Parts: sequence; C-alpha cells; structure tokens
Amino acid sequence: MLPTPPRTHAERTDWLRLIRSENVGPSTFFALIRRCGSAARALEEVPRLARRGGATTTPRLCSLDEAAREQQALAAFGGRLVALGEPDYPRLLAAIETPPPLLSVVGHAHLFEKRSVALVGARNASAAGIRMARVLAQELGAAGLVIVSGLARGIDAAAHKGALESGTVAVLAGGLDVVYPQENRELYDAIARQGALVSEMPLGMAPQARHFPRRNRLVSGLSLATVVVEAAERSGSLITARLAGEQGRDVMAVPGSPLDPRARGANRLIREGAALIQDATDVLHELEGRTTIALTEPGSVQGWLDDQSAAEDDEARLQPLRALLLERLGPTPIEIDELVRQIAAEPGELRTLLIELELAGRLTWHPGQRVSLLPSP
Amino acid sequence: MLPTPPRTHAERTDWLRLIRSENVGPSTFFALIRRCGSAARALEEVPRLARRGGATTTPRLCSLDEAAREQQALAAFGGRLVALGEPDYPRLLAAIETPPPLLSVVGHAHLFEKRSVALVGARNASAAGIRMARVLAQELGAAGLVIVSGLARGIDAAAHKGALESGTVAVLAGGLDVVYPQENRELYDAIARQGALVSEMPLGMAPQARHFPRRNRLVSGLSLATVVVEAAERSGSLITARLAGEQGRDVMAVPGSPLDPRARGANRLIREGAALIQDATDVLHELEGRTTIALTEPGSVQGWLDDQSAAEDDEARLQPLRALLLERLGPTPIEIDELVRQIAAEPGELRTLLIELELAGRLTWHPGQRVSLLPSP
Repeated sequence: MLPTPPRTHAERTDWLRLIRSENVGPSTFFALIRRCGSAARALEEVPRLARRGGATTTPRLCSLDEAAREQQALAAFGGRLVALGEPDYPRLLAAIETPPPLLSVVGHAHLFEKRSVALVGARNASAAGIRMARVLAQELGAAGLVIVSGLARGIDAAAHKGALESGTVAVLAGGLDVVYPQENRELYDAIARQGALVSEMPLGMAPQARHFPRRNRLVSGLSLATVVVEAAERSGSLITARLAGEQGRDVMAVPGSPLDPRARGANRLIREGAALIQDATDVLHELEGRTTIALTEPGSVQGWLDDQSAAEDDEARLQPLRALLLERLGPTPIEIDELVRQIAAEPGELRTLLIELELAGRLTWHPGQRVSLLPSP
Repeated sequence: MLPTPPRTHAERTDWLRLIRSENVGPSTFFALIRRCGSAARALEEVPRLARRGGATTTPRLCSLDEAAREQQALAAFGGRLVALGEPDYPRLLAAIETPPPLLSVVGHAHLFEKRSVALVGARNASAAGIRMARVLAQELGAAGLVIVSGLARGIDAAAHKGALESGTVAVLAGGLDVVYPQENRELYDAIARQGALVSEMPLGMAPQARHFPRRNRLVSGLSLATVVVEAAERSGSLITARLAGEQGRDVMAVPGSPLDPRARGANRLIREGAALIQDATDVLHELEGRTTIALTEPGSVQGWLDDQSAAEDDEARLQPLRALLLERLGPTPIEIDELVRQIAAEPGELRTLLIELELAGRLTWHPGQRVSLLPSP
C-alpha cells in the first residue's frame, strides 16, 4: 500500500525535507512515514531514532529554507516535483520495490502513461552498436513505445536521438539541471523540449559514481523491458539489466561477436535467459501482453511496512532485540523476512530498529528487501 | 536392432551392390535386409517388388562387376568400406535414424572413437568468423575433441585447419576421391594424412546439390554437438543444425551482430534454444556428461523394422492395403506410426508396401520416420 501523497504545500515541503535529510533513503522514508504518520512528525523523530541506532552525531536534516529554495529553483527551471501516489507519477516506476518518494521532472509527463522500453549500452560503443541503438529506438518509437535511457555517451545518446520525435525520457544521475556528460548538452536541451528529463536528486548536485546504480534502477523501473545493445562484462548496463530482472521486468539483449569485448556482456545475458533481439519486431514480439505490468498494484513489495502494530516504543523490549539484530546483521545482505523469523520481533519493532540503524548511517538497503550492516561509524 | 554386418567378402559385395542400386536409400536397404534375410536375396527381389510398387521400368541394379571395381579402386586409393555394425563404424553415426549401411573411409578410423563436435558455418565467412572457427577448433582439439566438418570454403575449412594437429574428420558430399571445392585440395590432402575423410557416395561421384543435405546429416551424426559459427538465414549450416536437433544432438551457435546477415541464422538458432557459445569453454561446459550418447543403442529408431511378422506376401491382403496406402500418402511427410494406425496393416505388411514404393521411385524418406509420396513416374 502506498502512503497518501502530500495534500498541502506544507506537506509536500515536509516530504522534500525528509527525503533530502541525511541517511534517509526511500525505504526508510516510507518506513518513517508509516511509523510516524507524517513526514513532519518523522522529521521531529529522526534525531532520537538515529541516536538509538548508535549515531554519534545527529543526521543533518534538510531545513525548511533549503526545501523552499529547491522548489523555487525547480519552478524557475521549468520543472516540478511529482510525489509517489500522484497521478503524474510514472505508474511503472511506482511499482518498483523502493520508488523515489519525489521525482523532479521537466518536460512532457504524459510520456509516463505510454508503454516504454529502456535502451542502454556501452559508452564506448561501436559504430554498428550506435546504429543498432538508433534504428531500434526509431522503430520502437514508430510502434508507439517511449524510449528510456540514461543520457550517457554511446548507446544511450543514440537511443535518445532515435526517439526524439516519437518520445524519450532521460534519467539523470545528478540533479535535473546538471548536464552530464557535457558533450550531450544539445541532446539534453532537445529532450527537455521534446521529451522528459527525470531525476531523484536535488537540483545542482553533480553525479558521483555511487549515483549511477541508483539512476539505473529508475531507467529500468520506468520501463516494461530493458534492452542492452552493447555491454562489456562488469559494465553499468549489466547492472541496469540485473535491476530490470529484479523489478520483474523483461531483459533483452542484442548479440554480437564474442571477439568484440563490447558484446560479451550482452551475450552472457542471453545465455542467462535474456531474450535475443535482432530488431524492433523481436522487442515488440517479446512485449506482447506486457501492458499489464502498468496495472500492478504499486509498492506491493513494501508489504512488511504495512504492519500496523505498536508504534509505541517499548525500549525494554527493543533493547535486547536491537542487540540480537546487530549480532545477526553483517556485510552480507539478508532478507527482512529472514530477520523477522530469526530475531522473533514484531514487524513493527523490526521496522523501528532498521529505521534507527539507517538513520545512524549503519545500514544499507538492497533490492529484494534485503539489508546489510556497514561498519560502525 | 542392427542387422548383422557382412561376414564374408561376398556378403560385403552384396551389401555394396544393394546400396548402390537405383532407388535404394538407407531406410529401404535395412527394410529389404529385414524382409529378405540377406542383401543377396534382396537384390533378387528388387525387380518384383518395384513392379508391385508401380514401377514401369525395373530399377537399375548395381552389378557384381561394378561393385568389385569400386572396392578395388577404393583399396588402390588407400581407403576401405566400413559396414554398419562393424567395430570401426563410427558409434555416434550408428545411432542416427538411418545410418549409411556402408561408409568409405580414408585415414585414421580411431578418431571415430573419440568425443567429437561438428563446427560448421558460412562459406562466405567474415574474417572474424574464420578466426573464431579456427580458434574454437584449436581449443576444442586441445581439450581432446575431434572436429567434424564438411570441407567447404570459409568456416568449414577454418575448423579443419585449426584441428589438423589434434584430429579432424571431413565428410564429403561426393565420392571420397572427389576434392570439392578444388581450392581445398591441400587441406584435403592434409586431412587424408592426419585425420579422416568419410563419404557414403561411390568413388568418382561429383557432388550435386541434393547430396549436401545428405552429407550434412553425416556431419551432425558423427558429432555429439553441432556448433554453428556464422550462418545466414536459409543456409546449409542451419540444415545441419536442424538435423543435429533431430538426431538428439546438442545444437550450439556463436552469436554475431544482427547487422551482419551472416549472423542472423546463428542468432535465430539461439533464440530457438541453441546454446550460446562465446568460446571453447562454453562448448565444453555444454558437453559435460554427454559422452553417454555414444553408448546409445544404435539404430534404435528403426524399431518398426524389427517386427518379425509375415515375410510371406499375401497379395490378396496386400492389394487393398496398397490402394489405401496410396490414397493416404501425399506430398506432406507423415509418420510411419500414423500410417500403421490409419491403414490397419501389420508392420511387416506396411514395410513391404513402403519398400515397393521406394523401389518404384515413388516414395521419399524424411527424418523422424516419415515418408511422402512423389508424383507417379
């Protein structure tokens, strides 16, 4: 079940403040809302919860001023915030495990209502790969599909270019106003006018290495399927493909000669079960009957958050559970369900303990409702 | 169950005469042996059976002289005949549906006892494809596998070359002494010395278009798996791959860019379930545990031939069955089992009727124990 989207401007600002606060990822954002009832109350509770989680310094909260400035700057830029649960929020994205609570968007939001496919691949793509991406994007666009990609050099750029006329969505790893790489500025401008730009990061934030996998989960999450055109082993495109699979979306790949290292990742995907794509017809064939995904109840994977049990903290009960949880957690991601069983906590209690740990900067979330512990700060 | 191989030189000559006689394919060869008890008696019966099948002229029988000349020429050439059921007959080939009763062989027959893989592909191969075939052959050879191919230009030749040192078998579409294409004469000579040459055709016969699919069934039949390196749509390599599948052997393919027409056939095979091969390790991985095929009871698919019922012809019974069979048969291949059910004949009776029709030149055999009718002569 999704949280109710903000109903007032003040609530919207609270949402923004909460997601922009230190150590608050999407999972903890929703867990806090569920636990505290509102973003405003969550903001009040963060310091105490972080302390209980072992934080030595209080996580930095996003101030009312900062949030207001971001909203104004975004409006001045021609963009706006869309909250999960609002009609303009991309339906496919709402269905992933931890959708961003707020998306910054510039351009034509109506594109989010159409069937869409991600086209991703190597930055150092071959001429043949670039042509393949452009033609695939053109032909899929002509068939009514929106093309989603990450505005990177090579395959991404070729895919966006091929779909400029028909509709394309670029997901940025940094802020909505940060053009990266600079060489794609012209394409960026064209997409802002003719397509849509999307980011979950604050305006002005330069993309950092750790942002790209997060961005990739939006690329795949916005799409019925991810098509990998050229991808070396251990490349970002393979991460996008893996995320697509974890999100229950189709993974497809265009094969290439094994003598070209840029094809080996795509070939391996096919070995592992991705659909082999030779042309747009193959993609359309694979997609037949896959509209249904858009109608999936969003956020269903967040089921464990829905438990309504004790918001009251009984520290006498929580304290031994916290010790046990810290003992059980380690660097290897483990499923929430497994933790519930092993430490015999109520789901609501476990939620509180996990919130505390993430706010204290000691916990990381992984796809598949899994968590792992970071070393103590 | 296999027929007993010839025990005397005379029996061997009779086998050769029978398989070299007009309208006698491997299926009818074995059916005749089963029906008549020996190749000698079968040769006597052919004219009468062909007449009953509707032949207007008697099929040309191979004379004792012709058979003796072929045997002498083959010996002079350094080759010999190997009969199905003899120890030197390739075990994998003996397991296919209609193995050649006699194989002409030059070279190292011990190669037939080793695990083997067919490497086939485009004649107009790309430089990358040629290199891939040569390296695959080298590496698979180093791993102890014999490489089987068809001595064609391009991929076939590259595969043989890569495996010259380790062991390679070339299957010829024409007679054992006919080098085709001429440009591969040097390779042909090297294989004759270092590997093995195999043919089911008489010495001196120039290969014709219709011989190539027959040859391809031996290429795949001699191999645990067929690996397609480059193959356009509707190419001979795809026929070999299909035959391999029908023979219960593994089909593997090396992918390539869909922009290269030479890759589209191989890519389609992968779409349809062939294992995607990037290097020799992939082939070896797929082959794990596949030695067992070599131990399969050979000729098991010929089960319907094993029926021991009435060799006596009751023409009063056969005549109406023949009329019904001719009515039921058409240009579309149909399973023997289905015919047995539909015309309610004893298997022995149906065998006789099918022998008659093939000898009369009116019947063709297809893989999967299927037959179709040719227009009346």
